[in-house]
Amino acid sequence: MKKIVVLGCGLVGSVMVRDLSEDPGLEITVSDASSSSLDRVRNLARVETKVADLSDPAVIRQMVGSADAVVGAVPGFLGDRMLRAVIEGGKPIADISFSPENPLNHDSLAKERGVTAVVDCGVSPGLSNLAAGRAASQLDSVSAVRIFVGGLPVERRWPYEYRIVFSATDVIEEYTRPARLRIRGEVVVKPALSEIELIDLPRVGTLEAFNTDGLRTLLDTIDAPDMKEKTLRYPGHAERMRMLRESGFFSEDPEKVGEVQVVPRAFTERLLFRAWKRGEDERELTVLRVEVDGLKHGSSLRFTYDLFDQTDEKRGETSMARTTGFPCAIMARLLARGEYTAPGVRPPELFAGMPTVYDKLIAELGKRGVDFRETVSPLSDSR
Amino acid sequence: MKKIVVLGCGLVGSVMVRDLSEDPGLEITVSDASSSSLDRVRNLARVETKVADLSDPAVIRQMVGSADAVVGAVPGFLGDRMLRAVIEGGKPIADISFSPENPLNHDSLAKERGVTAVVDCGVSPGLSNLAAGRAASQLDSVSAVRIFVGGLPVERRWPYEYRIVFSATDVIEEYTRPARLRIRGEVVVKPALSEIELIDLPRVGTLEAFNTDGLRTLLDTIDAPDMKEKTLRYPGHAERMRMLRESGFFSEDPEKVGEVQVVPRAFTERLLFRAWKRGEDERELTVLRVEVDGLKHGSSLRFTYDLFDQTDEKRGETSMARTTGFPCAIMARLLARGEYTAPGVRPPELFAGMPTVYDKLIAELGKRGVDFRETVSPLSDSR
Repeated sequence: MKKIVVLGCGLVGSVMVRDLSEDPGLEITVSDASSSSLDRVRNLARVETKVADLSDPAVIRQMVGSADAVVGAVPGFLGDRMLRAVIEGGKPIADISFSPENPLNHDSLAKERGVTAVVDCGVSPGLSNLAAGRAASQLDSVSAVRIFVGGLPVERRWPYEYRIVFSATDVIEEYTRPARLRIRGEVVVKPALSEIELIDLPRVGTLEAFNTDGLRTLLDTIDAPDMKEKTLRYPGHAERMRMLRESGFFSEDPEKVGEVQVVPRAFTERLLFRAWKRGEDERELTVLRVEVDGLKHGSSLRFTYDLFDQTDEKRGETSMARTTGFPCAIMARLLARGEYTAPGVRPPELFAGMPTVYDKLIAELGKRGVDFRETVSPLSDSR
Repeated sequence: MKKIVVLGCGLVGSVMVRDLSEDPGLEITVSDASSSSLDRVRNLARVETKVADLSDPAVIRQMVGSADAVVGAVPGFLGDRMLRAVIEGGKPIADISFSPENPLNHDSLAKERGVTAVVDCGVSPGLSNLAAGRAASQLDSVSAVRIFVGGLPVERRWPYEYRIVFSATDVIEEYTRPARLRIRGEVVVKPALSEIELIDLPRVGTLEAFNTDGLRTLLDTIDAPDMKEKTLRYPGHAERMRMLRESGFFSEDPEKVGEVQVVPRAFTERLLFRAWKRGEDERELTVLRVEVDGLKHGSSLRFTYDLFDQTDEKRGETSMARTTGFPCAIMARLLARGEYTAPGVRPPELFAGMPTVYDKLIAELGKRGVDFRETVSPLSDSR
């Protein structure tokens, strides 16, 4: 019997707890600041719940004391502190907290303590990193990495054709934070929502893709001269967001309205949160494409990875929670069982070349109905 | 020498004062609450300026005491009170204040006092009413009146392709107030910004037209089973406005944002006012089309009226101020000289059938470079 401690029981955390609890070889302790969040998982087998303040490193270190592996699923702003506390506690962790800080900052500490910290282990970052790393491990050299990812409602409703699957704050952050890409070997910063292009994908048709800041660790770990990450939406969404952004609706500078000072972004978030609210029965989908171009034995190849997933209506789980949570929950098992032990901070691209890990991960995703496939094709010079 | 009292010296009021001051047979007194507004006209010939509180009916009655005719150009919310005070003062008035109230409410009073009150005497309402009334006077029966009107920048700039020529408040009011139209003899209310259609117009190309609440007095004065008024914008604008409206950005219900209560519309107005601000040298245009279908001697005819006007760069006058102000300033002269004396509240459709007035008005507009033309064509049953 292995023991897994899950930190955070939000939408994704609870999906992971449920997934882990279906494994008879595991005991799970899950903690969250909110008792009502813990209600989601209270009746599951071999699951113990604990209300705890996960912003306190001492609490974290105590929580993880008896764990064989830890799952990190706290809000992004707590992610960095939590990660450090778990490494200090000497426990392996699979993490999807996506803090704004660079998780590789903790790499030396993790190595020093002999801790394996698998970070950014969701869908994107996560499976996108896995795909990039997998292709890089198969190629002699990589010339370009292109990541396209989006979470979308199945029913397209005017005007946004969008529903929130995580938080409105994070979505607007995606639309405002400048995107770092690499072009001909140089890191280049472009505005979010820029370079809107159309892309056809299986099962969803034509989507638009625009620059967002999603490369994260790949900028440090993958040696490719051209690299970009773009977010996918139904066509037209990005221009509406640009209109709001360019008119000041996402600004953080307070505006005087009548007698009061208002931060436009806070105001707009409130209205968009309402406009983007997902109805309880609304189906959504997650789509990810990663294209990696490179050379192998002198031939140009393209590795293409396609992920498609939809709401699991029976279990009431969104595809976004599934595709984010499952990779992390699967990795937590591998860590608990000592099947992956390389010390350091390890985003998925760093173990994607290990068949013992990669094959297991993809097979386990498949068992859960997440369709992730690799295609390799010769690359003509025309593209 | 005739004496004209101008109430209000805003963008349109000042254009009228200047126009009137070029007429050596006129003495003008102009008053406004703001001394700096009066600076616009202070050095013109035969113009006297007076700071005055035009929200006070007693002040109005005193102001107009010595006038041969009055020009009304106060903000809309003061319009109704001002109009009543002038009628009570027994003076003929040409008015472009466009109050939200129905000016015909004062018709009995005006008749009782023997006062001619030419109201809604701008471009639309104004020349649009003149066109509808002119066609109605030529036809045996009118089947349909369609009015299309817009003020637009010459340079189209993303995302709104729009510049304010009056006030942001009034523009948003146009986008929110339900539109009254007449369909098969019944008054029907439709949402503003509804029924977006494309229309090709000479000199401006393809525009979009959508329902706004602009028929005003025509609903009372013109006996036509079908009647509608639509606002013109460059294509795409209306959908952006609908997006904002439907997402709550124009709502008047306060929203709690952090610690403060904010009225969304007030907030949005502030941002859009900035986004729509016209640069000092930006050229704009005004376009009006009125189509009137009907029968004459058993034949179906269409009367089409087209107005086109652009910024007068030499004089620094917008086409919106020109096309709104000139009809009113011309009518004020006719009133001062006793060339139109029918008592009552008189929107332009009511004198459009009088060649002595109509021909003079169109000729005078032409002298000022405002191109307003009538075309009559047989109407095939196919349209």
